[in-house]
Amino acid sequence: MKLLIVNGPNLNRLGRREPGIYGSGTMDDCLRDLRARYPHDEIGYFQSNCEGALIDRLQQADDEGVEGIALNAGAYTHTSIALHDCIRSLSCPVVELHISNVHQREEFRHRSMLAPACKGVVCGFGLDSYRLAIEALKGA
Amino acid sequence: MKLLIVNGPNLNRLGRREPGIYGSGTMDDCLRDLRARYPHDEIGYFQSNCEGALIDRLQQADDEGVEGIALNAGAYTHTSIALHDCIRSLSCPVVELHISNVHQREEFRHRSMLAPACKGVVCGFGLDSYRLAIEALKGA
Amino acid sequence: MKLLIVNGPNLNRLGRREPGIYGSGTMDDCLRDLRARYPHDEIGYFQSNCEGALIDRLQQADDEGVEGIALNAGAYTHTSIALHDCIRSLSCPVVELHISNVHQREEFRHRSMLAPACKGVVCGFGLDSYRLAIEALKGA
Amino acid sequence: MKLLIVNGPNLNRLGRREPGIYGSGTMDDCLRDLRARYPHDEIGYFQSNCEGALIDRLQQADDEGVEGIALNAGAYTHTSIALHDCIRSLSCPVVELHISNVHQREEFRHRSMLAPACKGVVCGFGLDSYRLAIEALKGA
Amino acid sequence: MKLLIVNGPNLNRLGRREPGIYGSGTMDDCLRDLRARYPHDEIGYFQSNCEGALIDRLQQADDEGVEGIALNAGAYTHTSIALHDCIRSLSCPVVELHISNVHQREEFRHRSMLAPACKGVVCGFGLDSYRLAIEALKGA
Amino acid sequence: MKLLIVNGPNLNRLGRREPGIYGSGTMDDCLRDLRARYPHDEIGYFQSNCEGALIDRLQQADDEGVEGIALNAGAYTHTSIALHDCIRSLSCPVVELHISNVHQREEFRHRSMLAPACKGVVCGFGLDSYRLAIEALKGA
Amino acid sequence: MKLLIVNGPNLNRLGRREPGIYGSGTMDDCLRDLRARYPHDEIGYFQSNCEGALIDRLQQADDEGVEGIALNAGAYTHTSIALHDCIRSLSCPVVELHISNVHQREEFRHRSMLAPACKGVVCGFGLDSYRLAIEALKGA
Amino acid sequence: MKLLIVNGPNLNRLGRREPGIYGSGTMDDCLRDLRARYPHDEIGYFQSNCEGALIDRLQQADDEGVEGIALNAGAYTHTSIALHDCIRSLSCPVVELHISNVHQREEFRHRSMLAPACKGVVCGFGLDSYRLAIEALKGA
Amino acid sequence: MKLLIVNGPNLNRLGRREPGIYGSGTMDDCLRDLRARYPHDEIGYFQSNCEGALIDRLQQADDEGVEGIALNAGAYTHTSIALHDCIRSLSCPVVELHISNVHQREEFRHRSMLAPACKGVVCGFGLDSYRLAIEALKGA
Amino acid sequence: MKLLIVNGPNLNRLGRREPGIYGSGTMDDCLRDLRARYPHDEIGYFQSNCEGALIDRLQQADDEGVEGIALNAGAYTHTSIALHDCIRSLSCPVVELHISNVHQREEFRHRSMLAPACKGVVCGFGLDSYRLAIEALKGA
Amino acid sequence: MKLLIVNGPNLNRLGRREPGIYGSGTMDDCLRDLRARYPHDEIGYFQSNCEGALIDRLQQADDEGVEGIALNAGAYTHTSIALHDCIRSLSCPVVELHISNVHQREEFRHRSMLAPACKGVVCGFGLDSYRLAIEALKGA
Amino acid sequence: MKLLIVNGPNLNRLGRREPGIYGSGTMDDCLRDLRARYPHDEIGYFQSNCEGALIDRLQQADDEGVEGIALNAGAYTHTSIALHDCIRSLSCPVVELHISNVHQREEFRHRSMLAPACKGVVCGFGLDSYRLAIEALKGA
Repeated sequence: MKLLIVNGPNLNRLGRREPGIYGSGTMDDCLRDLRARYPHDEIGYFQSNCEGALIDRLQQADDEGVEGIALNAGAYTHTSIALHDCIRSLSCPVVELHISNVHQREEFRHRSMLAPACKGVVCGFGLDSYRLAIEALKGA
Repeated sequence: MKLLIVNGPNLNRLGRREPGIYGSGTMDDCLRDLRARYPHDEIGYFQSNCEGALIDRLQQADDEGVEGIALNAGAYTHTSIALHDCIRSLSCPVVELHISNVHQREEFRHRSMLAPACKGVVCGFGLDSYRLAIEALKGA
Repeated sequence: MKLLIVNGPNLNRLGRREPGIYGSGTMDDCLRDLRARYPHDEIGYFQSNCEGALIDRLQQADDEGVEGIALNAGAYTHTSIALHDCIRSLSCPVVELHISNVHQREEFRHRSMLAPACKGVVCGFGLDSYRLAIEALKGA
Repeated sequence: MKLLIVNGPNLNRLGRREPGIYGSGTMDDCLRDLRARYPHDEIGYFQSNCEGALIDRLQQADDEGVEGIALNAGAYTHTSIALHDCIRSLSCPVVELHISNVHQREEFRHRSMLAPACKGVVCGFGLDSYRLAIEALKGA
Repeated sequence: MKLLIVNGPNLNRLGRREPGIYGSGTMDDCLRDLRARYPHDEIGYFQSNCEGALIDRLQQADDEGVEGIALNAGAYTHTSIALHDCIRSLSCPVVELHISNVHQREEFRHRSMLAPACKGVVCGFGLDSYRLAIEALKGA
Repeated sequence: MKLLIVNGPNLNRLGRREPGIYGSGTMDDCLRDLRARYPHDEIGYFQSNCEGALIDRLQQADDEGVEGIALNAGAYTHTSIALHDCIRSLSCPVVELHISNVHQREEFRHRSMLAPACKGVVCGFGLDSYRLAIEALKGA
Repeated sequence: MKLLIVNGPNLNRLGRREPGIYGSGTMDDCLRDLRARYPHDEIGYFQSNCEGALIDRLQQADDEGVEGIALNAGAYTHTSIALHDCIRSLSCPVVELHISNVHQREEFRHRSMLAPACKGVVCGFGLDSYRLAIEALKGA
Repeated sequence: MKLLIVNGPNLNRLGRREPGIYGSGTMDDCLRDLRARYPHDEIGYFQSNCEGALIDRLQQADDEGVEGIALNAGAYTHTSIALHDCIRSLSCPVVELHISNVHQREEFRHRSMLAPACKGVVCGFGLDSYRLAIEALKGA
Repeated sequence: MKLLIVNGPNLNRLGRREPGIYGSGTMDDCLRDLRARYPHDEIGYFQSNCEGALIDRLQQADDEGVEGIALNAGAYTHTSIALHDCIRSLSCPVVELHISNVHQREEFRHRSMLAPACKGVVCGFGLDSYRLAIEALKGA
Repeated sequence: MKLLIVNGPNLNRLGRREPGIYGSGTMDDCLRDLRARYPHDEIGYFQSNCEGALIDRLQQADDEGVEGIALNAGAYTHTSIALHDCIRSLSCPVVELHISNVHQREEFRHRSMLAPACKGVVCGFGLDSYRLAIEALKGA
Repeated sequence: MKLLIVNGPNLNRLGRREPGIYGSGTMDDCLRDLRARYPHDEIGYFQSNCEGALIDRLQQADDEGVEGIALNAGAYTHTSIALHDCIRSLSCPVVELHISNVHQREEFRHRSMLAPACKGVVCGFGLDSYRLAIEALKGA
Repeated sequence: MKLLIVNGPNLNRLGRREPGIYGSGTMDDCLRDLRARYPHDEIGYFQSNCEGALIDRLQQADDEGVEGIALNAGAYTHTSIALHDCIRSLSCPVVELHISNVHQREEFRHRSMLAPACKGVVCGFGLDSYRLAIEALKGA
């Protein structure tokens, strides 16, 4: 199965950024574990701080025949109608995920602009949220 | 691992209730599959339409040494401060789950009173949400 | 025709509770009158102060082949998403009714969580609202 | 008993206007049925698209000794303080009615400016709402 | 000085309508007193229940060279952007007036759509509000 | 093509009313230009300050076989659910138009009650908005 | 008649403060004119920038047998519940007045906390508002 | 004096539940102290996690001639219109109490649905709040 | 124990001000009773209509070693962030109290700006609220 | 005349993206038609998914002497203050356009952050909206 | 240059009040440092807990020819329209300053009623905010 | 000291963009002045219209050992949670600054999403705001 993990703004600093909230694991470790656990699946990865570049990559994934996307859009989750529209235009399912439990944080992180366009949401399980999102895509 | 699945109001009619939204699978099938998949875990089950009875059961679970709870509180998710308080008083983690993607439905289903008290949230994957919640509890 | 009247919280004290608002007639008188007026119909009755028990009874009514329900959910009218979901899952029509004109009372009584799930609403006619709800069900 | 049915804007096109919502029956049929059903009552009828003309007619009804008014004010229900004031100044009871269940429609149809000034409300029963409003007036 | 008093909806029933709020004086008495008090001024009068007719009359007043308008727009005060626009297009000053103190009544009477387009506001003095509005126009 | 231009309240004073906002052109000039530009189309015209008269005219247009309506409802744009309902009941397309750019003006002019019932909206181009609305109707 | 004019914060700088809004007349001129116009009335005057001192003075007026108060509470109009309570505790009528038309200014000047406790309101007539308030008190 | 203390959801776990907020004292200790302090009064006690059971018990207390009720409705304080209605229907006074100072906690705990129906409120004094509520009832 | 009672605006007129709401007892009687009941405690008293003077007095109390303050800030309760800040800066506990049940009155009296800075709140028991606040301070 | 059409996020997939909403025409066809219809005008084109790149391009257009811009900013219409500021800084007029009637879609598409900075708005006419925007620019 | 520093409520207790938020420096130290750093400027100082006294002092400063004012109005920043009006009436510039970063604190500290009337705002730099405000005034 | 000035969208056109609001000075002049005034500090500069590029640059600054950042994020100040998160993840202090007094402009410029993550805020002093931000960083 051809899958893609997409990370949004500030997630390139995972492990260094506010470890009290996001933990000290890095995305490299996380990807290594996932690829080891799912050796028969192809798991791509992309990160950008730019909303437009994330849209470009999601559109390209659709063209490449990606079959499922695990999307941690970070802060854009709460503000981006453009990503919402992009997800709605894709033919493969997208799972929204978050490392932290956003509902325990500031009010402005409680609303997701993306969730209505996604298949489902996983949040609050640390880096394990990525595994659960992959599980959700494979179970779909 | 000693786990408990708790279902709230109207989930006793799963498979018969609005199949367009909740699917036609029954909770019996779902439980049989989960117990087959996790033979070394003990997976209890409880359903009630009564908010107070759900609180009673969660408190009792804490006394019985349950190690993780997958909670689909149905409509009480959006209104019950009493369940929020109950979850906060428990010593084991609780994962909030939903069969449907509540963010694609009415505005009043977008707010969760329980999520800030839970470890995390899984929603939108049909009955597979129960499996993912169990996975999340086992991965914790 | 097999009909059911369901009363919610505090309606067991009708005639004793705030007669300035609800009048001094009792539910017993009201039921006697209705059964006399509609001798060929079977008119059941249920009252509970518990939201969960009301849901249980509505579900059971559906299983018993009840053909129409006149529901005065009292205060739960304004807060219960669980009753809303229950009504939507029934196969027979439900008419929401109120003894008082809720629109002349506190702001928090102006919103009904149940009305969108019901066939229609009757309110403000004292105990005569029960007769009108039965009329509405028979006319449906 | 001297009764009056008053219809507000766009109700002159009943049967032709959005039949999915309002049904295909016409007001002529409805009035014929009501007059046949209540041969001893005098049932007047008035329709206008103009808020001011509706107020004029309600005031005149009061002067003519009308004993009860069934008012479907259509869209003015949700915006007209002027009609609210007019109803409060009348000496006979007014019943607000709607053909459709306004609570299942757009948010702006959920609030009634008139209901606090009326005796009660009937909505959601198609053209049968007119009969129920008449019943409510006669039962008052 | 050429002045005009314009009354909006339901003010044709002054003296008969809710005397607890509006008093038992009639507009005829009020006009007679005003014309006696200001014999050198020409004081016209117009009342309509129709928003459009009020606009027509205000526009016509402008064409007739009226030098000041005392406007009690009744319920339209709180909802009519059309009257607001009309007043802004006139060349003579308009004083908004109310018989009752609208700030002691329902929330929806606290906002005036017309006041920003008027010269000033007088409210709460019973029928004496008309005299004060005339005084204000003459003092301008 | 049989077209109709409908103007709402205060637009009968175009050229005289707040020229800083609406310009100094008159509707007569505008109509003459449009009829000259589209000699093969029949372009009717109607103006009223009365909400009810506008509804009457739109209904009549439907009966007369009008194929497209350019509607500048003026202030009623922002408040009239009755016009919204009327437009929805018509069989020909309606284009909402405004002379000024309403989004540069008061907050209460930013919301249109009519736009959801119309085919589309044109605003901000002075009297040229009428030509663009006609173009839009012809291009439909 | 024993009357009192009370001015709130910043009104001691009338004539010097934002003349574009408040005009260039001073309170001294205004008082001289009023006392000349009403030679048989006793017209007291008090100004303070301090909310508490205004309350002290209003209470004292009540003890002194003042028969009517014209109150321009300035900015405290929009925020002071303490003045509201004070006015409600007085036995003589209070008329709220403003020099400018507050409804043409910032949103936060549109709400009056005092008006519900006053007999009525006069606003927008420049210094003439003081005369009109006196007229209103004398006409009461 | 015949008094009743009623505790709502999660208060059966006092002493075990979030001691940082609710302290480590138990309800048993608290009741023993109160009964020792007021030996001539009869102090009943009831706790339930179920909203309906609380209403049942309050109604029964009214039938039993209870002369005052100290009610800590826990989370239902903030959501239950049904309890509000129940309290209004009782003939004896009810004092709302809270162990913690709810105003220092989450926004959703700041609003009480019950307070308008109660005699008064005591909150923030730990278990001593129960004593103060009893004092308040005895002082009434 | 050294205690201080502080009363805010308009409470100097207790017994004369709106007796329907505040009763006819005076503060002098109330203080005499309290000092008689607690002969071993020193109970100071201060009242002012001025927000700043109340802050001055509270700061001074802190310097004088006052061990507890019963504060009825009247209308400033609902608006004063300055008093909130002052209370937070004190080293002794402050109990907010009200004579009336503020939750049964206007909406703007339901929010307390002071409660989050106080130890607790007592309201609704007439002048007995002062005794209960003293009890609360002594029990702390 | 030197014109520029600028398309925002996801509009590079026109014809493939949600054809039920946006139609099946492509932007290539649309541009070909426009250039054929206006052979004497120079019509440039730019699309980007990146908010910053759109701002860069609009600034550059201003430097290149573009005389009018037709801007379909897609989702950024509803959120971008940065684009609003950019448009305000340009010397040529900008017309906001939309393919769909945004007022018939989700609530969050009803507000335009750009409209107050643009000359005017055209929406709801499918790809014909581009032609109408060009017409509007040429008519300006 | 003749400058004035004005401090509002509770700032007389700087160094003693919540040092975690406001630091342990005193205003005396701060003033000594500033006067040493700017020996050629005259730096006056005033503090009061009373809103009215602050207004009195600002008005007086204007009369004394003060050329710039650094104003830390403390809690009155968020509520005082009277201070807003006062600042607008002054002829010298006023800089609003705060010791703490108010945007990191409670919601009710995020809105400034004074900022729109001031030249600019400086906040969050501890006592150094006073120096920066002086710098800003001197740079103006 | 190693400092960095970062400018957001549209600030590359300073001096050309709305000089009435932003002045006619250019950023080049401003930087030259600052570097002359602080010859011993290294003052870097970066501008971008792209939110993602601003985040990239701030992250890179952290890696380069920058000791303080003066950030004028322009319009992104009011909308960007992504920049908020980025600032929170940096180890050096960030000062938010604005050229204009944003509190005197549109409502949507009054809220800052960045301020809670910054050390402090400086706004309203024209280009001098940059110098004050540098002063604030050096004084930290």
